[in-house]
Amino acid sequence: MGISLEELQLAARNHGMPLEALRYPLTPAGLHYLLIHYDIPAVDAQAWRLEVRGERTLSLSLDDLRARPAAELAATMECAGNGRALFDPRPVSQPWLAEAVGTARWGGTPLRGVLEEARVPGPTVDVVFRGLDVGLESDEPPQPYARALRLEDALREEVLLAYEMNGAPLPPQHGFPLRLVVPGWYGMTNVKWLAEIELVAEPFAGFQNRRAYLFRRTEDDAGTPVDRMQPRALMVPPGVPDFFTRRRVVEAGPCVLEGRAWSGLAPIGSVEVSVDDGATWVAAALGDDLGRWAWRGWTRPWDAEPGEHVLLCRARDEAGNEQPLAAEWNVGGYANNGVQRVPVTVE
Amino acid sequence: MGISLEELQLAARNHGMPLEALRYPLTPAGLHYLLIHYDIPAVDAQAWRLEVRGERTLSLSLDDLRARPAAELAATMECAGNGRALFDPRPVSQPWLAEAVGTARWGGTPLRGVLEEARVPGPTVDVVFRGLDVGLESDEPPQPYARALRLEDALREEVLLAYEMNGAPLPPQHGFPLRLVVPGWYGMTNVKWLAEIELVAEPFAGFQNRRAYLFRRTEDDAGTPVDRMQPRALMVPPGVPDFFTRRRVVEAGPCVLEGRAWSGLAPIGSVEVSVDDGATWVAAALGDDLGRWAWRGWTRPWDAEPGEHVLLCRARDEAGNEQPLAAEWNVGGYANNGVQRVPVTVE
Repeated sequence: MGISLEELQLAARNHGMPLEALRYPLTPAGLHYLLIHYDIPAVDAQAWRLEVRGERTLSLSLDDLRARPAAELAATMECAGNGRALFDPRPVSQPWLAEAVGTARWGGTPLRGVLEEARVPGPTVDVVFRGLDVGLESDEPPQPYARALRLEDALREEVLLAYEMNGAPLPPQHGFPLRLVVPGWYGMTNVKWLAEIELVAEPFAGFQNRRAYLFRRTEDDAGTPVDRMQPRALMVPPGVPDFFTRRRVVEAGPCVLEGRAWSGLAPIGSVEVSVDDGATWVAAALGDDLGRWAWRGWTRPWDAEPGEHVLLCRARDEAGNEQPLAAEWNVGGYANNGVQRVPVTVE
Repeated sequence: MGISLEELQLAARNHGMPLEALRYPLTPAGLHYLLIHYDIPAVDAQAWRLEVRGERTLSLSLDDLRARPAAELAATMECAGNGRALFDPRPVSQPWLAEAVGTARWGGTPLRGVLEEARVPGPTVDVVFRGLDVGLESDEPPQPYARALRLEDALREEVLLAYEMNGAPLPPQHGFPLRLVVPGWYGMTNVKWLAEIELVAEPFAGFQNRRAYLFRRTEDDAGTPVDRMQPRALMVPPGVPDFFTRRRVVEAGPCVLEGRAWSGLAPIGSVEVSVDDGATWVAAALGDDLGRWAWRGWTRPWDAEPGEHVLLCRARDEAGNEQPLAAEWNVGGYANNGVQRVPVTVE
């Protein structure tokens, strides 16, 4: 496969969710995926303020934010680069396989109320979110991590300024003291260590919007923005693994295949499972609904017969978006939601 | 560098500690390194028991263990494979660079009292610890993860049966509901999801003791056991990183280099820093002492002058063990405590 030192450095810092953790409806602390573009910044929560620049400028402390109307929701978050290392040729960046996902209950205050208090200027088109984390990208000088949302996306009721994760203050690596949570969108949208929100009258030309997170077929392609999560189902790999190869051995007899599925585009409509490498598909049973923005559990009994098998699962959402067997390659290696293949030996 | 798919699968599951987290005396939840040999098992804490097989057999619930004498200590834990991917040629297994470390406050009950209650048979030489996690190794059938300690090591007062990490129940990925903590030893010793302790009269011949964790110069070498952590110092890489290359840029002027150092062999005696790629070394100031088994903070002011620099740090313990510039290669890629090199550009 030939992963480079640069890619390994990223893989060693950033955290995947081991796929057996799909068994938990809410991902336990420390198992949620993590992609940290630069370094985790040291933040003095007492001195920290969120600056909001609309017609008025607000400067809000953590106590100010906690005193505002509270909201809480479970949201599944997936890195836009999930599956990148399975594209051929492999785009070089963080080399995720399939594990860059997690679900948490995020608590905070709706963004909309804060923007309204700062007053949205008439010509506003974008809302820019800047973090305290600073780094270099390509040929540009050091810059804070920054992403913009179009105003209409920023005003949606589910968008939160989150100061809690699973009922506790945000851990440092998830953006303490405050992060943006935009349910349904890929991870890069959910700016961590949030320090500044700016309402601007021109489309934001920052690196992460205009150079990084774009679907491009060639280097010269202007590209289209990466935004909402494409549908995907993942399976808890059954049986037991070999330490080094991660190849699985399953005991013959009845077992239950299980996993979770999500889509940022619409609620999950169905999940199908194949135990014969895609020759035939059967519907899985869907489990409890944690709410619109969280993944949906699924199960499917399987009478495992001795031999070699390849297990697959695929999600379809209520808007009719379905996972492809193989996703379309793109320069940045984004949104590779081609179906997961789990080879197993039944003994 | 040419990392393989198998190595990448391991790197994507297992978690390194981003090195900026060296700034925390106790590693925050979710940033401690994780090496999970097989899968995180699903454990029913109500049904779970620890079986202890001495002259008597004890079957202890979590409540039984919590009712025993309590002990707590801060311990630094490092994977024996830390630094493996920097060996040349590279032994193939989990490809750590330098980030497989963390420090936690572990709470539990001393192992010694439990062994005494089970009564240690006279001919006992080894104490075997088995977890609930099952997997395959090499040509062997599925087996639980198991490691043995010599009796005299198991009876040391600092060895804990730990049910708490930083004041909370163990997270699933750190061994819930119970793990062994053997301060000063490499991570593989600290058996997670502990289910059984057996006192045996012959040296334990299990895979992890007799085949895996050995220093071997060649494949035919019988080898010597990997046990206590060799001295190592690590530095918080200063300045800001480039996203992809992780290359650092530091602002010219005075700054403070900082990091932590540890040794499982003896308390840290000194840390030295070089800002000229090892041509000259200066002593760092040691910080607060968290106790014998935890890493020691260190700082060293640096007046950063424009240009290219390579920063190094090295630890020496009170027994005179010193980090080598380059560690001796071995088949398994263990204990690579060669000094960390941090290239930076000062602007």
